Amino acid sequence: MTKKIQILIIGHNQNGITPKTEKIAYETGMEVAKSGAVLITGGLEGVMKAASHGAKDGGGITVGIIPQNEPSPANEYCDIVIPSGMGLARDFLNALSGDGVIIIGGGAGTLSETCAAYMHNKPIVAIKNSGGIAEKYADTYLDHRKNVLITGVSSPKEAVKVLLEKINSV
Amino acid sequence: MTKKIQILIIGHNQNGITPKTEKIAYETGMEVAKSGAVLITGGLEGVMKAASHGAKDGGGITVGIIPQNEPSPANEYCDIVIPSGMGLARDFLNALSGDGVIIIGGGAGTLSETCAAYMHNKPIVAIKNSGGIAEKYADTYLDHRKNVLITGVSSPKEAVKVLLEKINSV
Amino acid sequence: MTKKIQILIIGHNQNGITPKTEKIAYETGMEVAKSGAVLITGGLEGVMKAASHGAKDGGGITVGIIPQNEPSPANEYCDIVIPSGMGLARDFLNALSGDGVIIIGGGAGTLSETCAAYMHNKPIVAIKNSGGIAEKYADTYLDHRKNVLITGVSSPKEAVKVLLEKINSV
Amino acid sequence: MTKKIQILIIGHNQNGITPKTEKIAYETGMEVAKSGAVLITGGLEGVMKAASHGAKDGGGITVGIIPQNEPSPANEYCDIVIPSGMGLARDFLNALSGDGVIIIGGGAGTLSETCAAYMHNKPIVAIKNSGGIAEKYADTYLDHRKNVLITGVSSPKEAVKVLLEKINSV
Repeated sequence: MTKKIQILIIGHNQNGITPKTEKIAYETGMEVAKSGAVLITGGLEGVMKAASHGAKDGGGITVGIIPQNEPSPANEYCDIVIPSGMGLARDFLNALSGDGVIIIGGGAGTLSETCAAYMHNKPIVAIKNSGGIAEKYADTYLDHRKNVLITGVSSPKEAVKVLLEKINSV
Repeated sequence: MTKKIQILIIGHNQNGITPKTEKIAYETGMEVAKSGAVLITGGLEGVMKAASHGAKDGGGITVGIIPQNEPSPANEYCDIVIPSGMGLARDFLNALSGDGVIIIGGGAGTLSETCAAYMHNKPIVAIKNSGGIAEKYADTYLDHRKNVLITGVSSPKEAVKVLLEKINSV
Repeated sequence: MTKKIQILIIGHNQNGITPKTEKIAYETGMEVAKSGAVLITGGLEGVMKAASHGAKDGGGITVGIIPQNEPSPANEYCDIVIPSGMGLARDFLNALSGDGVIIIGGGAGTLSETCAAYMHNKPIVAIKNSGGIAEKYADTYLDHRKNVLITGVSSPKEAVKVLLEKINSV
Repeated sequence: MTKKIQILIIGHNQNGITPKTEKIAYETGMEVAKSGAVLITGGLEGVMKAASHGAKDGGGITVGIIPQNEPSPANEYCDIVIPSGMGLARDFLNALSGDGVIIIGGGAGTLSETCAAYMHNKPIVAIKNSGGIAEKYADTYLDHRKNVLITGVSSPKEAVKVLLEKINSV
């Protein structure tokens, strides 16, 4: 089996990203790469781009799964582009493609991906000081079923470490 | 143009439904039918089934968009079944198929549909005393962009009335 | 169970439609309606529109499943519109939503829907004098597995009659 | 821009594959890898597996986009697995993910992917002595619109050479 662990990073797009969140995303992408995992993102701007940039600087492989039906909207740090042609329903592809998920900030799209991951029982961590959805849902369950706890973590390094432990114990 | 208004009702599936929520769903389905709108649901159990039952008793037309690739899992109150074959990503089909959305209770799947509707700027109302996602998100926005307010309402009748006003003013 | 039989009609869009094919599509839509079945189409122009027009004139119910993410591109004869937001991948939704398929003319999109129906073992008939894909594939199998024979028929009336027999014998 | 050229290889699954077709698929996968392109396949058995095997032996990167919603059904030669959860509608994801397509043998699923690629104007080549869909559709157009000619080629080496020329001249 040549498949590596695949980690999905989700969060703010260009709308709502701050320099602080961008820095966290870059560092988390780099940590993913250093761990040997493949980085999956939604392939566009904001956290997706910063994380992919970090992963490339860390020597990793990056995949961008985008809503459009041709590759040009993907950011320049995606090695591989999956132009889904499905619009925002590609949030489900993202969630299914990650063996685990890291949330950094984020709005309704990020929440949609979190729901998809939760319903499929994927391990999820949220970086607490990154704002948005990550901040709001850290250390909570999305519903009464308590499928998976969205574990709050404090740093990019901790995010990858804790997530890999969860993935490896599934 | 023969298309009627299409209203999506979302909420608890068999997991988490209570007799109270079921009654609300039934009555809301009936109100949708009485308004002349077509009812769209996820086609399975719980709120989906109770709402479809109510809509049929109210003389309406019901559509169920289900995750499976053949129609048999749909509940018996669906006139038309769309077996999407897309798994839970059909939540996006549901959201896109509604001109507006009514939330009754609900868990992570309901939240996923709410996110999809919100990102596509659909009018959304939530019946406040129905628990789950409806209760938690009534009178809030899903993120900082404030696309659409999830308007809290108090009864099935008010839900359909307020939603139709929103749909007609878009 | 309130679900009726759902028949998918596929064929030329505005590109390639002839008055003859349009007339066949209109008459076939009317036959579907008269049989009591619900008509499913791709919701756009050409055969999709003519068949929906015929079904409405025959008193039937019509559903249009379109590639776009909002209903306005659907033709005016669709009672219910499913704006899939999936682009041309909606061809699979169409195929899965039909209990059986009637081919009238058609190009690559029609062939794509035929493949999807074939792989899911749906009964398929093709109106022989309607040109395009219908003409080319009538009385053939799509591949060596011989899942289902694409039965050639000579008229709208025969198309619906033969298809219903196949559906009812599954 | 770090994205490499992505080549989709499609063809027989375990049902219908022959040792000859398997050998052609293995060699074509290796040629794709040697060209520096990323190999995209449907991730399962038959041509998909043999091509991925060849690409790995050639030092390349392989992506498998599968119908299921979790990665385990993918063959062992996929570096990256996209578990689409969309069933056979993932044929459209495959087509959209390739900058060009090579057909080796194949049945109705292969034809479905060919239709999707054709409708999106992707360059397509078919290896003529590989049977199935490749044999049947080599040097033809899928419909009257003549979007793209399915160019017949005689060997794995020629397939990759001709396809890259087409991709680079788009």
